[in-house]
Amino acid sequence: MSIQDLTGRLSEGALSADPDVIAAHAKDEALFCPAEGAVALVRARSVEDVQETLRFAHEHRIPVVPQGARSGISGGANAVPGCILLNVSRMNRILHVDAAERTATVEPGVINQDLKDHLAGYGLAYPPDPGSVAISSIGGNIATNAGGLCCVKYGVTRDYVRSLKVVLADGSLTTLGARTAKGVAGLDLRGLFIGSEGTLGVVVEATVRLVPALPDPLTAIAVFGDEQSAAATVAAYMATGAQPSMLEFIDRMTLRLLNEFGDFGLPEDAGAMLIMQADGPPEEARAAVAGFSGVAEAQGAVEVAYSDDPEDSETFVLARRMAQPAWEKYAAAHGGGQLLDDVCLPRGAMREFCDRLAALRAESGLMITLIAHAGDGNAHPSVFFDAGDPAETAKAQDVFGEIMRIGLELGGTITGEHGIGYLKRDWLGQEIDEPARRLHLAVKEALDPRGILNPGKMLSRLDRESLAGIGG
Amino acid sequence: MSIQDLTGRLSEGALSADPDVIAAHAKDEALFCPAEGAVALVRARSVEDVQETLRFAHEHRIPVVPQGARSGISGGANAVPGCILLNVSRMNRILHVDAAERTATVEPGVINQDLKDHLAGYGLAYPPDPGSVAISSIGGNIATNAGGLCCVKYGVTRDYVRSLKVVLADGSLTTLGARTAKGVAGLDLRGLFIGSEGTLGVVVEATVRLVPALPDPLTAIAVFGDEQSAAATVAAYMATGAQPSMLEFIDRMTLRLLNEFGDFGLPEDAGAMLIMQADGPPEEARAAVAGFSGVAEAQGAVEVAYSDDPEDSETFVLARRMAQPAWEKYAAAHGGGQLLDDVCLPRGAMREFCDRLAALRAESGLMITLIAHAGDGNAHPSVFFDAGDPAETAKAQDVFGEIMRIGLELGGTITGEHGIGYLKRDWLGQEIDEPARRLHLAVKEALDPRGILNPGKMLSRLDRESLAGIGG
Repeated sequence: MSIQDLTGRLSEGALSADPDVIAAHAKDEALFCPAEGAVALVRARSVEDVQETLRFAHEHRIPVVPQGARSGISGGANAVPGCILLNVSRMNRILHVDAAERTATVEPGVINQDLKDHLAGYGLAYPPDPGSVAISSIGGNIATNAGGLCCVKYGVTRDYVRSLKVVLADGSLTTLGARTAKGVAGLDLRGLFIGSEGTLGVVVEATVRLVPALPDPLTAIAVFGDEQSAAATVAAYMATGAQPSMLEFIDRMTLRLLNEFGDFGLPEDAGAMLIMQADGPPEEARAAVAGFSGVAEAQGAVEVAYSDDPEDSETFVLARRMAQPAWEKYAAAHGGGQLLDDVCLPRGAMREFCDRLAALRAESGLMITLIAHAGDGNAHPSVFFDAGDPAETAKAQDVFGEIMRIGLELGGTITGEHGIGYLKRDWLGQEIDEPARRLHLAVKEALDPRGILNPGKMLSRLDRESLAGIGG
Repeated sequence: MSIQDLTGRLSEGALSADPDVIAAHAKDEALFCPAEGAVALVRARSVEDVQETLRFAHEHRIPVVPQGARSGISGGANAVPGCILLNVSRMNRILHVDAAERTATVEPGVINQDLKDHLAGYGLAYPPDPGSVAISSIGGNIATNAGGLCCVKYGVTRDYVRSLKVVLADGSLTTLGARTAKGVAGLDLRGLFIGSEGTLGVVVEATVRLVPALPDPLTAIAVFGDEQSAAATVAAYMATGAQPSMLEFIDRMTLRLLNEFGDFGLPEDAGAMLIMQADGPPEEARAAVAGFSGVAEAQGAVEVAYSDDPEDSETFVLARRMAQPAWEKYAAAHGGGQLLDDVCLPRGAMREFCDRLAALRAESGLMITLIAHAGDGNAHPSVFFDAGDPAETAKAQDVFGEIMRIGLELGGTITGEHGIGYLKRDWLGQEIDEPARRLHLAVKEALDPRGILNPGKMLSRLDRESLAGIGG
């Protein structure tokens, strides 16, 4: 058997064994995740390409790493030794928009923002908006059950997927779920594939639910002297029954870095800022902003302001979306290391989480920033370090783990939206109990008995022997 | 081994082997589904009772039929030969309501309406509202992924379940899902259990997501000369981007039976009626009603009216909810037979579905009524027949199957919300393709290797030999 035997079964030029081409596709955006040893790259152009690749890999027991835009940050798309990289980013057609049924049927490589732009012409919207919206693909969004800024009102990717076409480990093609608004025929295998990170099969087509175009929001900001007051505002405001369409938290250091990065006019020397949006009918949105202002002031906000000018809204949201580039600029000037974490907490625990992060900063001596999709309790702390200093790098990795441990202690999860991938594979077993670990392995074994789909990732450390070693 | 060996391991009085007691618990509300042969009834009072029962059953390979309120209409809770009926309806405590996180944690036996009533005191709501809301339990709602009237705006049970405690086939207890608003750690096994109809495990606790108390709706009705115009109105109205909180269809015959059944003041001699509700801010609701009226008139409605008087709303919704009792009264006077079907269609196919039903009526000579959660395309035709006449009974069963076949032909599903259970087990294989059938069986085998959980139901006819026999 040679990998070249696969060539003739695929679209012309789909398979490459060129080491440089392979190397250029070997990894996603994660740090500290190996990505070596791929033997081929398949750039699938059709469902048949995906089927043929998996049939071949199944027959010869070759690992397959499914990939889309490789914008993930958990190493889920990274090469593993001896693998075929199966990239579907060229399968990027929007196949059908059905305005009456409010559905769109797309290939997996369609970029999220491209779908949004296309739907605007129909007066329809596909809400899920991960931070990577401009570069990540629908297939990858499904593989990780991507979230984003609008989840607090509109939910996550899972809430919008009606049905999937999936190629299974042995190359067979199946349709899961129903295109209709409701459907309960059989087990929810559609749902099982959402968030499965390429460990169960490869999504080759998705029919997603749409909503009417989202109304322009009102935007409010509240500035606080410290992070704790901002966190307390989130919990108190959400407890009023509010339904903001966005509620984001930015900490002191990130505000400072953003002001250095661009001309966003963010408050200098603030302890923290919340950005809140309310969409819907104007009257309702105004009431929501008033409610938010009242809660923020009661919690000690030093400034509250709002605007119905879409330009102002865009500036604040852009500033929020620029947090990652601003951090990267800082990191580049300070040793290059940044680890972005992703814990989701009960909203009521956000305040204590800020306290615990402050203690971690003090103990470790490392800079740790925090932004959060605060309305959902989804916190994204970043740990900065000198990547050229092995001791500091190790310390940063410890802090990264400690953040997850704190998340679990506070009743949360180790990942709200970024997924397990390679990066958190040693921690998954800490979150789920022993019978759930067994269930995961049993389901994996049932769907991929030869273990060829994305091995060494999400589920690879759930066996009891390995778990015993990490102090769970 | 004797079933009495289990007695000492359970709460006092939990196990009964009294044939009369067993017989009184042997079935749900389905017709034409066997329910014989149970050897014991366990009325679990605790998680431990459920665990002990399953440990015992697993060890001795005894079938177990999980049950809640037995309000289902697909035979999913019916006894199978040699089984233990494991009823959890006495585990009916509301354990915790967390207003800040907007979650409730409940035992499975809590009646849906009881939870709703309890939450009203917190200004919170649990939206899913199956027709059986007053008698069905949250555990059963989860087992069938129950829908209802509000789904068109608020979604189904699946959309509200954050995490589950589940007892697995071998008696082990696990927690699946996260309590937080977001969470992607591992496979979505929580989702896999929702709608699994007791074939994978027994839900013993659920944490559900809540929403702020729903606002009072405006209610509009539109009366049509024929069913087709009403169906066309639904598709056209939903295509405008409308978000009604209810959109129900009632056909000519059901209107007549309802007027005979109670004093609802429904239009006499109408061909069909739509009941539409819009909640939300008053201005938005008024706009929605106006939009609905405009579309209905354009489609030829003979009367359109609306009201913001909650009493009027309640009268119309009550009338809709009384359809089943009205049918039962009719059936009782006409041979006793009624088969209620449950197909979900693309909304745009509702009109053709009405045509096909009319043809079925003409061909079969049987009365077939239709109500529908029309905004979701979820149609509930009922076939009436003389249950004492074997030939007519067989004909009714054929028509019942033919309705599902039409549903599939029109791009729909054989069950929108009632589930497969025993009633539709021969049809499941018609809807899902061969690889999906294999996946279902592989997952079942992985989670219940001894096949003790609700055998002979949902998944029991997915093996290829049996499928070959029913013309799929």
